[in-house]
Amino acid sequence: MARTSNKNRDEKELGFGSKNYNNTVRFINTDGAINVKRSGLSGFNNIDVYHWLIASSRAQLAAVIVLGYIFVNLVFAAIYYSIGVQNFGGVERGSATQEFMSMFFFSAQTVTTLGYGHIYPIGNAASVAAAAESLLGLLSFAIATGILFGRFSRPKADILYSKNILISPYKEGRGLMFRITNKKQYELIETEASVNLTLKNPETNRREFFSLDLELNRVNFLALSWTIVHHMNENSPIYGLSVKELEERDAEVIILIKAINDTFSQTVHSRYSYKWHDMVENAKFKALIPDAGKKGKVKISVTDIHHYDKLPVNNDSTASLKL
Amino acid sequence: MARTSNKNRDEKELGFGSKNYNNTVRFINTDGAINVKRSGLSGFNNIDVYHWLIASSRAQLAAVIVLGYIFVNLVFAAIYYSIGVQNFGGVERGSATQEFMSMFFFSAQTVTTLGYGHIYPIGNAASVAAAAESLLGLLSFAIATGILFGRFSRPKADILYSKNILISPYKEGRGLMFRITNKKQYELIETEASVNLTLKNPETNRREFFSLDLELNRVNFLALSWTIVHHMNENSPIYGLSVKELEERDAEVIILIKAINDTFSQTVHSRYSYKWHDMVENAKFKALIPDAGKKGKVKISVTDIHHYDKLPVNNDSTASLKL
Amino acid sequence: MARTSNKNRDEKELGFGSKNYNNTVRFINTDGAINVKRSGLSGFNNIDVYHWLIASSRAQLAAVIVLGYIFVNLVFAAIYYSIGVQNFGGVERGSATQEFMSMFFFSAQTVTTLGYGHIYPIGNAASVAAAAESLLGLLSFAIATGILFGRFSRPKADILYSKNILISPYKEGRGLMFRITNKKQYELIETEASVNLTLKNPETNRREFFSLDLELNRVNFLALSWTIVHHMNENSPIYGLSVKELEERDAEVIILIKAINDTFSQTVHSRYSYKWHDMVENAKFKALIPDAGKKGKVKISVTDIHHYDKLPVNNDSTASLKL
Amino acid sequence: MARTSNKNRDEKELGFGSKNYNNTVRFINTDGAINVKRSGLSGFNNIDVYHWLIASSRAQLAAVIVLGYIFVNLVFAAIYYSIGVQNFGGVERGSATQEFMSMFFFSAQTVTTLGYGHIYPIGNAASVAAAAESLLGLLSFAIATGILFGRFSRPKADILYSKNILISPYKEGRGLMFRITNKKQYELIETEASVNLTLKNPETNRREFFSLDLELNRVNFLALSWTIVHHMNENSPIYGLSVKELEERDAEVIILIKAINDTFSQTVHSRYSYKWHDMVENAKFKALIPDAGKKGKVKISVTDIHHYDKLPVNNDSTASLKL
Repeated sequence: MARTSNKNRDEKELGFGSKNYNNTVRFINTDGAINVKRSGLSGFNNIDVYHWLIASSRAQLAAVIVLGYIFVNLVFAAIYYSIGVQNFGGVERGSATQEFMSMFFFSAQTVTTLGYGHIYPIGNAASVAAAAESLLGLLSFAIATGILFGRFSRPKADILYSKNILISPYKEGRGLMFRITNKKQYELIETEASVNLTLKNPETNRREFFSLDLELNRVNFLALSWTIVHHMNENSPIYGLSVKELEERDAEVIILIKAINDTFSQTVHSRYSYKWHDMVENAKFKALIPDAGKKGKVKISVTDIHHYDKLPVNNDSTASLKL
Repeated sequence: MARTSNKNRDEKELGFGSKNYNNTVRFINTDGAINVKRSGLSGFNNIDVYHWLIASSRAQLAAVIVLGYIFVNLVFAAIYYSIGVQNFGGVERGSATQEFMSMFFFSAQTVTTLGYGHIYPIGNAASVAAAAESLLGLLSFAIATGILFGRFSRPKADILYSKNILISPYKEGRGLMFRITNKKQYELIETEASVNLTLKNPETNRREFFSLDLELNRVNFLALSWTIVHHMNENSPIYGLSVKELEERDAEVIILIKAINDTFSQTVHSRYSYKWHDMVENAKFKALIPDAGKKGKVKISVTDIHHYDKLPVNNDSTASLKL
Repeated sequence: MARTSNKNRDEKELGFGSKNYNNTVRFINTDGAINVKRSGLSGFNNIDVYHWLIASSRAQLAAVIVLGYIFVNLVFAAIYYSIGVQNFGGVERGSATQEFMSMFFFSAQTVTTLGYGHIYPIGNAASVAAAAESLLGLLSFAIATGILFGRFSRPKADILYSKNILISPYKEGRGLMFRITNKKQYELIETEASVNLTLKNPETNRREFFSLDLELNRVNFLALSWTIVHHMNENSPIYGLSVKELEERDAEVIILIKAINDTFSQTVHSRYSYKWHDMVENAKFKALIPDAGKKGKVKISVTDIHHYDKLPVNNDSTASLKL
Repeated sequence: MARTSNKNRDEKELGFGSKNYNNTVRFINTDGAINVKRSGLSGFNNIDVYHWLIASSRAQLAAVIVLGYIFVNLVFAAIYYSIGVQNFGGVERGSATQEFMSMFFFSAQTVTTLGYGHIYPIGNAASVAAAAESLLGLLSFAIATGILFGRFSRPKADILYSKNILISPYKEGRGLMFRITNKKQYELIETEASVNLTLKNPETNRREFFSLDLELNRVNFLALSWTIVHHMNENSPIYGLSVKELEERDAEVIILIKAINDTFSQTVHSRYSYKWHDMVENAKFKALIPDAGKKGKVKISVTDIHHYDKLPVNNDSTASLKL
């Protein structure tokens, strides 16, 4: 990510414009989603069905599949029923409801290509409808195969961010610090971080964006945890600011992480944001204590990255940069 | 994209050669396709079936599948019929047409592996044909699964371009400006733009290509809209030219956009081109007014990027660079 | 691709070592394959079945599938036959051959999950075998689906290379030139070329590798054709050499092309090599004449890239660099 | 990979922290896995089922599939049995065990969509259960298709590393050397190596990481073998150290290889590590002798990369850098 010392350029880089909104604007949600709603095109052009199916929850997808299955079977049951049950061999004659149910189950056996055959089509109309339904069924399950594969093969970066971002004593001054770790057992390699800050400028009444210089912006393996540190020195846009002042300027720290998922050799992206109310002044992260187990295996507990200690005021001990 | 100040090099970079065509040449269509037809190889070598199936419209694909299904069933119905209906159990004897239809439906039940079984093969010839057809069916639907997955997982950049490219007052001079936005709800990140211009050179009678310097050629998120600006200063190949002169030189502005689709972490490309008749002189884009909704959510209407105001002649107010 | 003026480094870069083989060594075949056979591991570790299935010809793959299908059905027919045909309902009793054939067809109906049901298993042994075969069938067709998808979604660069590489008059001197074009209708973008040369050094009796400087090593679109030119000036390792001398030093020109397949936004690679016997001295490529058709569409015939004219000796007219 | 001469920065780059563990720590296993166990989240959040299924062995996956198949059939057999066998046509009445087995086989015929139909559901409860099972079956096999495809299309770099890392005479001094080759017949291109070293610092009692400069860190083709050499000169962190001293400082050499799998144009990564007990002092790799076969094909035996010769002490002959 290009990082220039030119403030104007930094201001434009993120792509959120410079309009000054009210205090409650949040550009990035804590789940990494960009907090923007785009409208203006007719519904069909604005929605991407495949993206929705890939990004929806498991419960939503299951509901879509089950309801779709019932719906298709109802439609074809109606078609078969209107063709007439006498055009189907093996159907037990009974009440209209029972005959419709028979057609419904025949449809289910057709769309899944199960085809027990105790009920079977007689005559052209019934046979054509059944042939069409079985084709539809095969194509639908082809699409379902693609969606299920698309979902679980979708590149993910399961990064855990510390709940708070600390302003800690750091190198004769102060540093803005947060910690990240990999939640899962697969590996992330060549992990890069880029940290941006947005502030309201009370003079120009515009929103400004800054990229924050990091002490280290890349690690080869995200094997343990990584404490990402911005030194709040005289070159920092937040040099000398207190959390109180950052609140007044509606500060938001926007984190962009880029890594390679080692299992699939795919580049993955993760985003997170801290608002001013996530900031803790004068605190220090607790050291993470990895242990070496049998066969030289190193162990850590990932949720320990959230823990920090409040410091007595004006304490100038050096924070541990990284575990 | 390498950009050099060397004019000769720029001239060669795009790969369209320097031949001077008649006035109506358009290198890039508005759907992003390159307007070149390549022939010379025998048909089979020149067509890539998979690329065609992936890039064809939904209606075309549906037609191919339905007609293919009917065709295969006709072929196998003919094979079964020529083997003789007496080699199939459960077939009701009747007219030749009706018996052929029975074979057609038996074929459909076989190719989809539905297999009701009220009709079934007797004897080796019929059984071999049915075994072959069911294998063919499974492989065909394997291919269909791949094509459907290939289609909807194909990386796309659904970028909306403003209908017109404006020559607006900009920084003591003029700027060539257009706006883009993301049509869909998924996110595009690390969006980069490159803008090229092609002009007929009346002196050398050759076509020349230039890359145009941009005020900003990258945004981190294409969250709202992005106004891409080329400053028409003394270093610009179109410094001082009017739309009338650009028409005479058959100007075409070729836009290349590169971004990362955030859902799949895939790089996507988008192209667009403006001909001289898409240019509007002395106009200015209307500001897009995003609103902050509940929970700090920002909202925009994407089709607003088309709107502009004509300016009184010689107006030198500064255009808003970017929303 | 890093290109240094340091000869030693160039020598090592390709990875073919510096051993001096006999005259007939060819490192890259004309189909782009690297001409190296690696052995030494036991067969199973050295062969990658999936890579073979992806890279094999259509006829080979079809043979594997059809023979595999027959083989599996023979194996299960033998299993069913040994369980005993009396454990299957609907089998017509007859000769051993005929009963085996019935079991074979029952197997085919089971492995494809066709399941007509006119033959069906009775008892536990037959039922277990059928249940196992249907699971095997589904998994096999899952694998076949993956292989077929892997084959046709495999990124390809269908680049056509001119049959010969010419030594043409160029800029007060001579140039080594060949032409490439895209054989197919889909587009290749951001195409980059890298050209390497290998020569036998008669003094050190080692093989040397050089990267050749190109007049232009990248085009945005490979829309028409691209003439790739190495200026044989005093910095060139082949300055002043004749084709006769290149033959004596067993010259091979190794071409590496890298591009992005626009349909899938995937990077693709193509390789080609010219041996000394593909070189033509004192010749010039015929200009390719693209035409502008209806709607400003440009047309070319791709096989025209092979055509060249022999020049009278000592002709110093400038060759057309690029169409 | 950024490589700086700044020692502090090198120390942080790998992401393993600077804690000093006991002697037996090994960061990278010889199979390339990072030797870290992450815990702390509840089980479900910490395990990625898809990653496990992709990375598990063939035997594990086969066990999961077969046991899952049996389990699902047992569950549905129990459901059908509790609905009552009288609700199924074609079931031969018998002992409870035999009737349960019939339901088990009916379930298998339903979940695979085989559907012989000699047993078929009668009434709503049985039909609904069968319709649900066939849907479940289709979705399960869709998932299995995805997993099988994900497994065999997973980008791999099958790199063979020499069993030992040698300290050999090299250029008036000593070099740290190991050899790699490609185990398989598909090609790896644009192969890059990065070599890191970790040592215990007895003074600070911290673990330090260094990146080692290489004589050549990239080859275009990994066609034959590649000897990767670190010159142990005065700029090297291990200048003048003996294997004995490297053992005392618990040395581990961590190798990162990055290449492009030519068949799929995918970037692949490989890792390896040598501990001090894999180091051999005063030895030299045996030259690999590739042969040129018919049609100029070059042949090598990959396991030859392990072979080396012990040298008489103080031998200063120059090692062959690369075959």
